[in-house]
Amino acid sequence: MSRPSGRNADQLRPVSIQRKYTRHAEGSVLVAFGDTQVLCTASVEERGPAWKKDSGWVTAEYGMLPRATHTRGRREAAQGKQSGRTQEIQRLIGRSLRAVVDLSALSCCTITLDCDVLQADGGTRTAAITGSYVALVDAVAAMKKKGLIKGNPVHGQVAAISVGIHRGQPVLDLDYVEDSDCECDMNVVMNDAGHFIEVQGTAEGHAFRREELDRLLDLAQGGIAQLIEAQRAALAG
Amino acid sequence: MSRPSGRNADQLRPVSIQRKYTRHAEGSVLVAFGDTQVLCTASVEERGPAWKKDSGWVTAEYGMLPRATHTRGRREAAQGKQSGRTQEIQRLIGRSLRAVVDLSALSCCTITLDCDVLQADGGTRTAAITGSYVALVDAVAAMKKKGLIKGNPVHGQVAAISVGIHRGQPVLDLDYVEDSDCECDMNVVMNDAGHFIEVQGTAEGHAFRREELDRLLDLAQGGIAQLIEAQRAALAG
Amino acid sequence: MSRPSGRNADQLRPVSIQRKYTRHAEGSVLVAFGDTQVLCTASVEERGPAWKKDSGWVTAEYGMLPRATHTRGRREAAQGKQSGRTQEIQRLIGRSLRAVVDLSALSCCTITLDCDVLQADGGTRTAAITGSYVALVDAVAAMKKKGLIKGNPVHGQVAAISVGIHRGQPVLDLDYVEDSDCECDMNVVMNDAGHFIEVQGTAEGHAFRREELDRLLDLAQGGIAQLIEAQRAALAG
Amino acid sequence: MSRPSGRNADQLRPVSIQRKYTRHAEGSVLVAFGDTQVLCTASVEERGPAWKKDSGWVTAEYGMLPRATHTRGRREAAQGKQSGRTQEIQRLIGRSLRAVVDLSALSCCTITLDCDVLQADGGTRTAAITGSYVALVDAVAAMKKKGLIKGNPVHGQVAAISVGIHRGQPVLDLDYVEDSDCECDMNVVMNDAGHFIEVQGTAEGHAFRREELDRLLDLAQGGIAQLIEAQRAALAG
Amino acid sequence: MSRPSGRNADQLRPVSIQRKYTRHAEGSVLVAFGDTQVLCTASVEERGPAWKKDSGWVTAEYGMLPRATHTRGRREAAQGKQSGRTQEIQRLIGRSLRAVVDLSALSCCTITLDCDVLQADGGTRTAAITGSYVALVDAVAAMKKKGLIKGNPVHGQVAAISVGIHRGQPVLDLDYVEDSDCECDMNVVMNDAGHFIEVQGTAEGHAFRREELDRLLDLAQGGIAQLIEAQRAALAG
Amino acid sequence: MSRPSGRNADQLRPVSIQRKYTRHAEGSVLVAFGDTQVLCTASVEERGPAWKKDSGWVTAEYGMLPRATHTRGRREAAQGKQSGRTQEIQRLIGRSLRAVVDLSALSCCTITLDCDVLQADGGTRTAAITGSYVALVDAVAAMKKKGLIKGNPVHGQVAAISVGIHRGQPVLDLDYVEDSDCECDMNVVMNDAGHFIEVQGTAEGHAFRREELDRLLDLAQGGIAQLIEAQRAALAG
Repeated sequence: MSRPSGRNADQLRPVSIQRKYTRHAEGSVLVAFGDTQVLCTASVEERGPAWKKDSGWVTAEYGMLPRATHTRGRREAAQGKQSGRTQEIQRLIGRSLRAVVDLSALSCCTITLDCDVLQADGGTRTAAITGSYVALVDAVAAMKKKGLIKGNPVHGQVAAISVGIHRGQPVLDLDYVEDSDCECDMNVVMNDAGHFIEVQGTAEGHAFRREELDRLLDLAQGGIAQLIEAQRAALAG
Repeated sequence: MSRPSGRNADQLRPVSIQRKYTRHAEGSVLVAFGDTQVLCTASVEERGPAWKKDSGWVTAEYGMLPRATHTRGRREAAQGKQSGRTQEIQRLIGRSLRAVVDLSALSCCTITLDCDVLQADGGTRTAAITGSYVALVDAVAAMKKKGLIKGNPVHGQVAAISVGIHRGQPVLDLDYVEDSDCECDMNVVMNDAGHFIEVQGTAEGHAFRREELDRLLDLAQGGIAQLIEAQRAALAG
Repeated sequence: MSRPSGRNADQLRPVSIQRKYTRHAEGSVLVAFGDTQVLCTASVEERGPAWKKDSGWVTAEYGMLPRATHTRGRREAAQGKQSGRTQEIQRLIGRSLRAVVDLSALSCCTITLDCDVLQADGGTRTAAITGSYVALVDAVAAMKKKGLIKGNPVHGQVAAISVGIHRGQPVLDLDYVEDSDCECDMNVVMNDAGHFIEVQGTAEGHAFRREELDRLLDLAQGGIAQLIEAQRAALAG
Repeated sequence: MSRPSGRNADQLRPVSIQRKYTRHAEGSVLVAFGDTQVLCTASVEERGPAWKKDSGWVTAEYGMLPRATHTRGRREAAQGKQSGRTQEIQRLIGRSLRAVVDLSALSCCTITLDCDVLQADGGTRTAAITGSYVALVDAVAAMKKKGLIKGNPVHGQVAAISVGIHRGQPVLDLDYVEDSDCECDMNVVMNDAGHFIEVQGTAEGHAFRREELDRLLDLAQGGIAQLIEAQRAALAG
Repeated sequence: MSRPSGRNADQLRPVSIQRKYTRHAEGSVLVAFGDTQVLCTASVEERGPAWKKDSGWVTAEYGMLPRATHTRGRREAAQGKQSGRTQEIQRLIGRSLRAVVDLSALSCCTITLDCDVLQADGGTRTAAITGSYVALVDAVAAMKKKGLIKGNPVHGQVAAISVGIHRGQPVLDLDYVEDSDCECDMNVVMNDAGHFIEVQGTAEGHAFRREELDRLLDLAQGGIAQLIEAQRAALAG
Repeated sequence: MSRPSGRNADQLRPVSIQRKYTRHAEGSVLVAFGDTQVLCTASVEERGPAWKKDSGWVTAEYGMLPRATHTRGRREAAQGKQSGRTQEIQRLIGRSLRAVVDLSALSCCTITLDCDVLQADGGTRTAAITGSYVALVDAVAAMKKKGLIKGNPVHGQVAAISVGIHRGQPVLDLDYVEDSDCECDMNVVMNDAGHFIEVQGTAEGHAFRREELDRLLDLAQGGIAQLIEAQRAALAG
């Protein structure tokens, strides 16, 4: 059974991770999962979180350029608020990255990941998490160079991918065409030890069976292993 | 290994589902999972969704009374916006209920589930989903009685529970004390066929292994089977 | 001439004042005037008002659950602001309670009364004031127990009732049916010395004569005397 | 016992009502109660209220120029919302004027009274009501002239004044100095038949006795009779 | 070729600058350019800007009363935000005045110019700047008298006028009729040395040639010289 | 006298105009003026403006990615409103493009230019206008291809550049370093006939003389002629 894109069920789209994409940010990464392109910048500010003394913080904000999508969406800044979807995504990105950072080792600095979607074709939040990790590592390196921190507060690697059931078939890394027409989908965030950081599966149409869930998790594990490699290659480059 | 509440690992808190709690709503349910109390009302309005012709809609709104919690939280109406957390929860409740409703059979009516937490002790969103299902069924019965619809648009039962790993032990239905101190937790929404509608697992502290995930899903399945029974008993009462 | 409810002109609806309704708040009262039910919680925070040094503060917030009413109202948190009516009511509640409290004896603490209407059938603001007084007294007792204050900052008792002219007849404690069909109505707040704290009379349809105003004030005085008793009984219970 | 201004207890400040103060509005009145100056414009728009078919509407908006007061207040437009006080006042003005207008005779037009305080010295809301009545009459005359309406939808005259207890003495028409230092105050709105449209009495400090309330109402009746005359004179001018 | 008002191409409307228009503000000026009337108050607050230590600040806010115009505009406070036009204008006024003030000589005080349009007939922003200068000088004098400052922080005079091409003819000081029907217009702000502080020319319909631009600047220079005189006369008065 | 960048006074930074930068928009251009990079997309929607029958519309929205700048700025969507600066800029872009479009020939379509700054180094608004023109032309070509319009509604070319006085020397196309340290600057928008569409000059520090203004306009004319050529080359490519 073939996918609209002709990919195999367990095949990722071409992944590209381009560092130093813009000049000013401590970390700046353009990540692409096929036609999905997200600019992830990591900004370091020397102030800790208001609610937690003697600690640093890692947080994220997400945005979609109005015409990143097939039809123009309304600009959230002009509407005066972020949608529920945007807030859900940026909270997810922030939590995912905090799962691999020792906040107490950040010298009371805040690192903000800004994930702005330049072009959308499904999977923007998983691309954002995967790219943000690389931007975060670059930002931490910049902090070290500047003498802000000593050790390495990043104690693991994190990447994310979507999986779903499209026309009865469990598939990896859904693009927009599949996403619009799938029965259920799941975003999975894992670390380099192969453990789960977030699992968010949703079925509006068709509730999924335990064995389907198991198969989706298998697919995700395989995909994330490749993304972990791609991150390493980018950071080594 | 004992839990703070003395419960077994796979033991729910006492569940109570009280119908007709307030007078005006077509469905009005006070659901309690132990000390967590949520008032779920279902309101029928004879207008369909703006974006979908010839269809009805089911949606949800969630709120927490300012002093439902240990310390007073700020009132969202006074602050001028709903938090990201609130929006995430109400979107989850809406999706969960739509998964068991045939929207085209709603005669272009909208059913709104208002879930207001009177007292919070962990698990408010899972209680809200579980109680909302019962309020929804009552509202649909009222629609039938009023001649608005003929068949039964509700084609399945839906309930939800939280699970998590507390001090190394996978446990069912976390209360506030466990929730504040757990390494990872997951909200699971299932239907009466034992299939998954939503799975939302989060690990900020400790990433969970595949076998832990499997054990958590087992616990959730067991708990939800009991909640499905409790809903039936309430509706039969 | 009989009222829709069959009550006498000077007859209150059944009043019930239930303390310790929820667990977390320092004071938590469910007050009912007939079918009107308001949950009043009093929360103590150890910070004084920004604009007044060496003083405590008493303030109130009011909300109506969306389906407390016959038809669903829009949730203020979702709309992004409190209505003019809501603000008027919560300002009234706050002023009324401050009239019986010595703010300088509050040890720079703030007590917030949250009045949330679970079910509405007319007179929600008067029920809220009457119930909030009892919640306030419980909160002050909790402060004393905790050693925050020494003397008793509450130097009087306060209660409120509505009166109005329904079909030509001055009546006490209007329910929703009367309220929707009355020519003018007045909310009266008094203390246990029988003096007036607030008088708010409004006539959109029919302006009222001085002798009608006098009769309405008489009715209110009688009703409030009974509420003062009900508060005492609840606090003694 | 003398008042800070040297006025007698039952003496109004000098009242001036200047019509056609600005050019564009159908009615435009600058009303002064002593140093309090409010510009009241009445604007006619040929659209009825959304919620009431075959009816016109009368509504009001109130604003205070930032430096109308002794110290500069924040501009509500810049803050992004109207205060609770502003909303209370503009609701009061609207209700007061609707009490003397037959809305069904307004040919589905809306008349908006904009009351903007140029200079404040106490009593801005009562001046606003008193001046708005005159602007309303001018706007109705303009509607007649333009052929929008035939009969006279205004069936009564309305004016307002404040009264209060200042240093133990009941006084009429409080200025800022008295207002800041009074034990309780009351705004009274009456029609030309001497009947009450609104009575809003507030005592934060000292609850008032029934006989004090009676005396305050007497003072208000006397003051309003003079304002009714002043309106007539202005309209005759 | 005659203008709708019968004025010559280089003729200003009658200018009037009335000081001490309201009582409370340190500077209070009613400025009129023909039928355009703007109330400019200058308020002194003893706090400097948050972002600049050891400095004072001069800022402006602009508002239009809803019925200052031919048809009623919506009140910005009620809409919950200032329009883009309002913000542009108040930023322009602030910048223009700061151009003639030595902020470091303001003793860390902030002077706020509130420019509220009572009646609009074109050129409200230029009238606002011209009037605000006079209010500013009065406020600075008040500061001196109060001992807040010693020297004179105002090192120049500033005034503004509009120019435009109406029906092919370059004209000075456009009124509403001309403004609605002009091909391009320009607001010019100058100091008493005849130098430019702001030049804002806009052509939506007809792009203007360099020689037209030159002619418009000539007209503006001539007009502003007269305004500078009018300001001096008012301050001498 | 040399500029920080080593450029001559009348020298532009390297200009690049890259079409079809993203896939979905009808026009999509990445424009660079040196290190300033702005993504300009043109989106066609088949709905005209609400306030103008039988007409199309051209409008613009502007945004800056939070870390486009040296230090991170706050995300406007998260703050809940667009700054005054943002609104000023997007209004300028919209007006500038409308100056070369025959709106009545747009078949009641709206073209929205979204200008999002990926990297900022001074001159973002002028780059946005220059790039938006090219995106607009591409969008109009797409409309023609789709049969939405027949003739060419674009009747001229438009480009923009900044000029200013830096350390006493009039210079063209200021970068961030010059912009932060200049005495006055001006944004100039012109068409391909060499006429002015917008002139916005501002002097906070040093008011500029007429001859300086003349010199700045000369510089701008020279720069814009080059930009007009660059646009032509891009569109021919």
